[in-house]
Amino acid sequence: MKTVAIVGVGLIGGSFGLALRAAGFTGKIIGVSSPDAAREALGRGIIDEALPLADAAARADLIYLARPIEGILSVLDEIDQSVKPGTLITDAGSTKSAICCRATEKIARGQFVGGHPMAGKEARGAAAAEATLFRARPYILTSECSQLEELIASFGARVVIMPAEEHDRLVALTSHLPQLISTALAASIGTEPEAFRVAGPAAMDLTRLALSPYEIWRDIFDTNATNIDAALGVFIAKLEGLRDELRSPRIEHEFENAAAAARRLRGSS
Amino acid sequence: MKTVAIVGVGLIGGSFGLALRAAGFTGKIIGVSSPDAAREALGRGIIDEALPLADAAARADLIYLARPIEGILSVLDEIDQSVKPGTLITDAGSTKSAICCRATEKIARGQFVGGHPMAGKEARGAAAAEATLFRARPYILTSECSQLEELIASFGARVVIMPAEEHDRLVALTSHLPQLISTALAASIGTEPEAFRVAGPAAMDLTRLALSPYEIWRDIFDTNATNIDAALGVFIAKLEGLRDELRSPRIEHEFENAAAAARRLRGSS
Repeated sequence: MKTVAIVGVGLIGGSFGLALRAAGFTGKIIGVSSPDAAREALGRGIIDEALPLADAAARADLIYLARPIEGILSVLDEIDQSVKPGTLITDAGSTKSAICCRATEKIARGQFVGGHPMAGKEARGAAAAEATLFRARPYILTSECSQLEELIASFGARVVIMPAEEHDRLVALTSHLPQLISTALAASIGTEPEAFRVAGPAAMDLTRLALSPYEIWRDIFDTNATNIDAALGVFIAKLEGLRDELRSPRIEHEFENAAAAARRLRGSS
Repeated sequence: MKTVAIVGVGLIGGSFGLALRAAGFTGKIIGVSSPDAAREALGRGIIDEALPLADAAARADLIYLARPIEGILSVLDEIDQSVKPGTLITDAGSTKSAICCRATEKIARGQFVGGHPMAGKEARGAAAAEATLFRARPYILTSECSQLEELIASFGARVVIMPAEEHDRLVALTSHLPQLISTALAASIGTEPEAFRVAGPAAMDLTRLALSPYEIWRDIFDTNATNIDAALGVFIAKLEGLRDELRSPRIEHEFENAAAAARRLRGSS
């Protein structure tokens, strides 16, 4: 692997470039981005050169698509004619079924493997990119690919192979549901003008996601609404169950079950 | 003020003692706690002496009640006969109406002012106490009391004077609702055995409160169920609203409103 093209050099694409370098990659990294983002990525040494998509695709051995979902779908529509046969193409989109489906339709010369690093932070753009962003985090791949698995493992990430449909069902619960919960909680607290006077750590922790800009969520809702609706159904039923048992000793059992699930998530039981 | 009695020398009571010392208090601090907790607090230099409740109450100029709510209610039932006339009594209970109501009934020789520091952390007990726990956090008092206001301000906390009923209505939204949400989310994620494989920062942040032990929540639910039920009603309606609009452009407006509320909570708009 001599040349890598990163399409969308923001937080995730930029962190991928930095992680590549930190893992010892000595080849060329080409960026495909807006002029401002490309300048920032060049300035930080994340990319060696900025090129238009077709030119970058033609030179790359690995193409990393790190735009929002709609942007990834658009690139998949047009990129195949530009790539060298056998070029490995992967992405970092937040839902996988729509993207993998599009890739199956449109990618023939290249080889596509869907990806999703479960990493992120509030700050955005290449300025916020970090070589360690993926470390100790799950990184989902939608099919086996030893070259990509080794690369991602070298970033310190935990590679998880999982079909696109299962990924989308699970992240509806673990990622998309938390966002909607945080947004609904902030909106609820917003109904009380005096609430900010008493807000402690719990309110702060649970409304942090509500600061996320909508633009990254539009595509997620568009491509995963059925799973998200099901996750909301499970959650609202659990919450109504707690509501019914507020004054009942049975609620202790619900707290214990939930605490056990929270510990399992942390790998500690 | 020469002598302070802290009843319940755990995380909050212990932090109150350390904050007192850090603020320059040179008098005596008496602890009333279980033998183990008292030994730990003596070992850390948080208290100078451990005594039974009646003896501690008889010597104190300020009595700080930092047990769980039911424990505070029990102390209020029996303490008045032991205190010197005019002794200031305050508490750190998580709900205020039941406690202030009980104090009105039972405290005659002493002067009671309800309190609630909006601070905490996962670790518990005097071993986890910190002099800075209250810093930059709201500290609610249910009535004006210049002596207490000055003391709490000297800890770096933000004193908020608010009637007990308003406190309980607001913390139902900002503190009790987040706990139930976190518990219901952890229980929901727990329905998917594979979810831990893809859980990222959002799932971790929003299920942290679900690790809280139920024992501190039983009393909160017992004494604030009506307000919590109302807060759950507001939240579930907001979430159902988002669910209905998952594929609608109107959801962007909901995201913007929620982000604005989250920023207001942080004092940044």
